[in-house]
Amino acid sequence: MTRVGVLLMNLGGPERIKDVGPFLYNLFSDPEIIRLPLPIFQKPLAWFISTLRSSKSQKAYQAIGGGSPLRRITEQQARELQSALRNRGINATSYVAMRYWHPFTESAVEDIKADNINEVVVLPLYPHFSISTSGSSFRELRRLREVDKEFQKLSIRCIRSWFDNTGYIASMAELIEQEISSCESPNAAHICFTAHGVPKSYVEEAGDPYKDEIQDCALLIIDKVEKSLGFSNSYTLSYQSRVGPEEWLKPYTEEVLEELGANGVKELIVVPISFVSEHIETLQEIDIEYKKIALNNGIINFRRVKALDTYPLFINGLADLVASCLSGPEISLDEAAKLPEKVKLYPQEKWQWGWNNSAEVWNGRVAMFVFIICFFELVIGNGPLHYIGLL
Amino acid sequence: MTRVGVLLMNLGGPERIKDVGPFLYNLFSDPEIIRLPLPIFQKPLAWFISTLRSSKSQKAYQAIGGGSPLRRITEQQARELQSALRNRGINATSYVAMRYWHPFTESAVEDIKADNINEVVVLPLYPHFSISTSGSSFRELRRLREVDKEFQKLSIRCIRSWFDNTGYIASMAELIEQEISSCESPNAAHICFTAHGVPKSYVEEAGDPYKDEIQDCALLIIDKVEKSLGFSNSYTLSYQSRVGPEEWLKPYTEEVLEELGANGVKELIVVPISFVSEHIETLQEIDIEYKKIALNNGIINFRRVKALDTYPLFINGLADLVASCLSGPEISLDEAAKLPEKVKLYPQEKWQWGWNNSAEVWNGRVAMFVFIICFFELVIGNGPLHYIGLL
Repeated sequence: MTRVGVLLMNLGGPERIKDVGPFLYNLFSDPEIIRLPLPIFQKPLAWFISTLRSSKSQKAYQAIGGGSPLRRITEQQARELQSALRNRGINATSYVAMRYWHPFTESAVEDIKADNINEVVVLPLYPHFSISTSGSSFRELRRLREVDKEFQKLSIRCIRSWFDNTGYIASMAELIEQEISSCESPNAAHICFTAHGVPKSYVEEAGDPYKDEIQDCALLIIDKVEKSLGFSNSYTLSYQSRVGPEEWLKPYTEEVLEELGANGVKELIVVPISFVSEHIETLQEIDIEYKKIALNNGIINFRRVKALDTYPLFINGLADLVASCLSGPEISLDEAAKLPEKVKLYPQEKWQWGWNNSAEVWNGRVAMFVFIICFFELVIGNGPLHYIGLL
Repeated sequence: MTRVGVLLMNLGGPERIKDVGPFLYNLFSDPEIIRLPLPIFQKPLAWFISTLRSSKSQKAYQAIGGGSPLRRITEQQARELQSALRNRGINATSYVAMRYWHPFTESAVEDIKADNINEVVVLPLYPHFSISTSGSSFRELRRLREVDKEFQKLSIRCIRSWFDNTGYIASMAELIEQEISSCESPNAAHICFTAHGVPKSYVEEAGDPYKDEIQDCALLIIDKVEKSLGFSNSYTLSYQSRVGPEEWLKPYTEEVLEELGANGVKELIVVPISFVSEHIETLQEIDIEYKKIALNNGIINFRRVKALDTYPLFINGLADLVASCLSGPEISLDEAAKLPEKVKLYPQEKWQWGWNNSAEVWNGRVAMFVFIICFFELVIGNGPLHYIGLL
């Protein structure tokens, strides 16, 4: 009987306060998170940002109990999914591979090899594809595969995105309906979908399908909710968790909350649409920061739809995904890891790869830029990184 | 039905080459591993040693495939033990808590709390108690419990050591017998028990029962082997993995190997007695370094008994331990974490706690000592740390 390994990929999160800095360093070291023209600056900048940013971030993790629950929840999801698949007669074992914290992808690959798995199904726990989430995880897995002959022998099938999965849509709709029904005036409640943002350039220049998938997904969910309840609620879709000076997908959730308050919304249901597990973005950013903004702007009843975690209908949807992936056409790791098109970094000036004039000019500019930033931050204790909200 | 959580404690090991340095830092930051008179020097010294030692250590991990298999094996042991306990009608879930690397004890505690466990059995995967292994893990768990009210509510029972466990002794004996039978002259083969060493002062000054338990354990195993085979093999017991300038338990394994070769031993069976999982000490130190010493000294047939890993008889022995712990008298975490007596650090001079003359004198001495070491190592690129084998 084929031994199937289901590799669940997610972001990872620090579980102890002292791990926050190293976690941030890993995150900002990824060129898919902060893009720089010369890779040589990646690690120093990652070190610099993570060092200066970690105390703020530590406070956020302190506020949710001292660490991220993501590993625990993801491992629970893995166990539940494994049981669901075995109940269907699929001899599956599930593994967890985090991108920026333990357990890392390397550990999962070692486990898969040791367990004599015949076929691997790669399932990112991001319903919507983005260069910076599923894309980064697929490419990490491909890097490990390139240098591991034993791993290369294994057949791999990938699930690239699954925002339209029936179980996922239905479980999101169910949880939203429960919150609507708990409102004083259910049909006057406003639904605020909030997704993790990405830089606008990812979508507009690099062709990241993320925004389209998020929009389609919100429509599918709202349609399901309306059909079930028999009435329509007003809704908005916005993006949260912006970092850095670049423009990200708009509207920003915090601005939408202010507008909704100003427009007289009294009962609000916030739906974290791109997160399937409770994490810092739901427990701290939405439940604490955004709630405060909402209440300050006149919203009285602030309700947040819980993340799916191990909601049985959702786990069943994941099992459907794995089952159809096994019987459907194979999507290779190369196809899944492929970027939509060449990412244009600086469209205003032609960029050339290699050690050439263009590179040297940019090298000088970036070095001066980073030097000035460091100078201000270190000497004056304030500067551009504080100004743009990175510190 | 009582939900039992079985907490398996072990050392932990880096799974990726880049994790070797941080792992060593964690290891040497533990005052149970390197004892200093003033805790303030602990972290700088840990940083210094781990930084300078990591490239040598990385090479060792490279030689065994790029990382430690300890997490993977320990999680396999956890799964097998869980199944064995459930087959006996005990509603058990097992958890892994590593002391110096991921998954850390904090993660296991979070999982235990989330799973609504009623009773925790703490089982160190060290058969023999030592201040620096089980002792350090018990105290780590106690520190976490002291600051966690939810965790304090949980009933905890500890297994302090289990070197005389029937399943453990029997499975060690079985594996040794297999190796003896594979020798050309089975009754002429020499058995070399090798245990992880500890500083002699732990045993002689602090009262660590480690050496006694190792000796008793070797006798139990050899007795079982003799009864089963019907003949006696010569055997020795020695200690490996010494680090630093201090005297450790003797004889040292490398010296014993030289002597055995000089005495004409041709077939040798090395038995890693204090390790229940394959790790750097078995796969690299014994299989590569000690094998080389043995072959260079005239030993022809060098055989190493495999670590127990998930050997069914061994897992069954662990299940016996958990079952009797649940029905037997309760050993609390405080009792398990207790040191045998106050550790005497510098018996040649009376040590007084607090900021007093004695502390200041030692402060000055240690600061000068560390400064001189750093100076030699950094400026000349060679010095005392190289000389004593730390680098």
